[in-house]
Amino acid sequence: MILIDELAQLATPALVIDAAQTRANVHRLAEYAAAHRIRIRPHTKTHKLRRVAHMQLAAGAIGIAVAKVTEAEAISDPEQDVFVAYPPVGEGRADRLAALAHDRTMRAAVDSLVAIEQTAAAAKAAGATIGLLVDLDVGLGRTGVPSPADTLPLAQAIDRASNLRLDGLMIYPGQVWSKPNEQAAELKAVDDLIVETLALWEKHGLRAAIVSGGSTPTAYQTHLTPHVTEMRPGTYVFNDMNTVRPGFATIEDCAARVVATVISDAVPGQVVVDAGSKTLARDASSVPDGGFGHVVEYPQARIKQLSEEHGQIDVRACDRRPKLGEHVTIIPNHICPCVNLHAAVWWLEHGQPLERLTVDARGCIR
Amino acid sequence: MILIDELAQLATPALVIDAAQTRANVHRLAEYAAAHRIRIRPHTKTHKLRRVAHMQLAAGAIGIAVAKVTEAEAISDPEQDVFVAYPPVGEGRADRLAALAHDRTMRAAVDSLVAIEQTAAAAKAAGATIGLLVDLDVGLGRTGVPSPADTLPLAQAIDRASNLRLDGLMIYPGQVWSKPNEQAAELKAVDDLIVETLALWEKHGLRAAIVSGGSTPTAYQTHLTPHVTEMRPGTYVFNDMNTVRPGFATIEDCAARVVATVISDAVPGQVVVDAGSKTLARDASSVPDGGFGHVVEYPQARIKQLSEEHGQIDVRACDRRPKLGEHVTIIPNHICPCVNLHAAVWWLEHGQPLERLTVDARGCIR
Repeated sequence: MILIDELAQLATPALVIDAAQTRANVHRLAEYAAAHRIRIRPHTKTHKLRRVAHMQLAAGAIGIAVAKVTEAEAISDPEQDVFVAYPPVGEGRADRLAALAHDRTMRAAVDSLVAIEQTAAAAKAAGATIGLLVDLDVGLGRTGVPSPADTLPLAQAIDRASNLRLDGLMIYPGQVWSKPNEQAAELKAVDDLIVETLALWEKHGLRAAIVSGGSTPTAYQTHLTPHVTEMRPGTYVFNDMNTVRPGFATIEDCAARVVATVISDAVPGQVVVDAGSKTLARDASSVPDGGFGHVVEYPQARIKQLSEEHGQIDVRACDRRPKLGEHVTIIPNHICPCVNLHAAVWWLEHGQPLERLTVDARGCIR
Repeated sequence: MILIDELAQLATPALVIDAAQTRANVHRLAEYAAAHRIRIRPHTKTHKLRRVAHMQLAAGAIGIAVAKVTEAEAISDPEQDVFVAYPPVGEGRADRLAALAHDRTMRAAVDSLVAIEQTAAAAKAAGATIGLLVDLDVGLGRTGVPSPADTLPLAQAIDRASNLRLDGLMIYPGQVWSKPNEQAAELKAVDDLIVETLALWEKHGLRAAIVSGGSTPTAYQTHLTPHVTEMRPGTYVFNDMNTVRPGFATIEDCAARVVATVISDAVPGQVVVDAGSKTLARDASSVPDGGFGHVVEYPQARIKQLSEEHGQIDVRACDRRPKLGEHVTIIPNHICPCVNLHAAVWWLEHGQPLERLTVDARGCIR
């Protein structure tokens, strides 16, 4: 629990991470996964912190997932098992992936022959081996081939190529979040698609050692897709309002908060804090009228508008109102792009001074 | 004009700045301002680049505006005239403002006695003088006191305080953008509020040497608020889709584009590029169905959804479709938070190799 009194001397805005709550989130999922014999490969794009990656690995994670090869460069270590959940298409991407494969296990997701060819060429040039997972779209419609049958030519091409290793199948059931009441049925349908794919591969002498799935909202439902061998949730490590509002976590589970100062109360019924879209990120709420985050000390307040450096908070419904110069703490709607805006976070171990931690993989745009 | 062929070797995503178009944007506004005898104090939060600030100053800008004291530290130089268009409330903010005031002219905006007291205390402790402008809300309802009468006690408090200098009045007519047809009437009403304020101050022996106004959408209408002495537009230097769509600029006026690569075309009717919310920023379009930016080479395409590292582009309406691995260039909805996501931009002088420029004031959160 982040206590506002511990933060009185902090220059704001600042992102504070509650170490104990982060550990609790990591260990709770580790226990669930162990009970169900599912592996965890946390998606480090959420925290972008080497310290937290090490915490997750110490708690039993088999490796890490990243969104970009540049993130892998910034956050992974030799000997680690790293899955870039993204196709290595584009100038330099496969080459950098291959360079990392010299001293760690590198895997990536593909949904095209072009991606396979670019990766194979880079791996061959580097004299390295890269593992590929075929991306199957299970309903989100973002990436991934549309059907189990479409995975086969890709799996075969990977299997044929020198310097590539067919590692398995990747899915991302992102569409399940928005349908909490149909989650079990949706996940059953996802598992059916996996089973159909694996049967087809087996018929052609191919095997998927890994079936990578999952995300934070479905993390504790992963046993409903029993053919998923590992999950790669990201947000669970900190949680955020878009995890809390649909019921996937509680306010108490949120380990990351932006500390902000009230810098104006001149407009009646409103206070303005120094956390805007360049601090919180502009991701919308998962519910209508959810605003741009949750003010912990003033739960009736509503962050109604963000400019780049201003957060306009409607305080008309509050019994008492925050004063000019006062600190408040805000749980953002989406913690992943929020962390990415901060050069450093403040690591809070209760009873110890706040520690400034550089966000190791911040940006990493290219 | 950014030509896609010049960018073939670029690792993506990457933000490219067209130097010639940037110069044209800077000089066009400088000519307008000179013709109307209005000063320009560009808001550097848009570009966060020392090179562009110097270009603006060389074209006649009287100084710069910033949103944060930390931005002023990163982007301003000794001897410069710097306006922090933000109240110096909160831990350390006024102290850092006062430290800069030793070797440059520092000004800030205030809308409370608390802000004035904190600034006066810091200026006194540092043995420096800080100029303050009173922030009057002219309709946006973000910061600023609600009426001309409310400015008087603040102006008097500044005038009385040692180490403070009453510099004038600040307004921000942000609400005018959304009413293009009523713009002239809205700006007339804004000027009436300024006149009323100045008359009240004069009656009490106070003078506003500066009336700071403006923003990009109203920049070329500044003569409709004749009592504004200087404007502080930011976006005009690069422009973006939220400037173009309401008619304040053209596509050709846009000097900044994100270069992205098509990394997936597996989902029918769609391509996915490697520019998501961590590259473009998630600011909504100013028009319904505007999507998350404009794909220059495929004007019928629509960026329908952004994940952190994925931009999903609906290409069903396109005559021809972008191919896997192809580069496209995207004009973002809002260029200011976009620049802030990039550690560096690529500076494009035609006929010369691309130059990597660090974004000097990126982040600068505290």
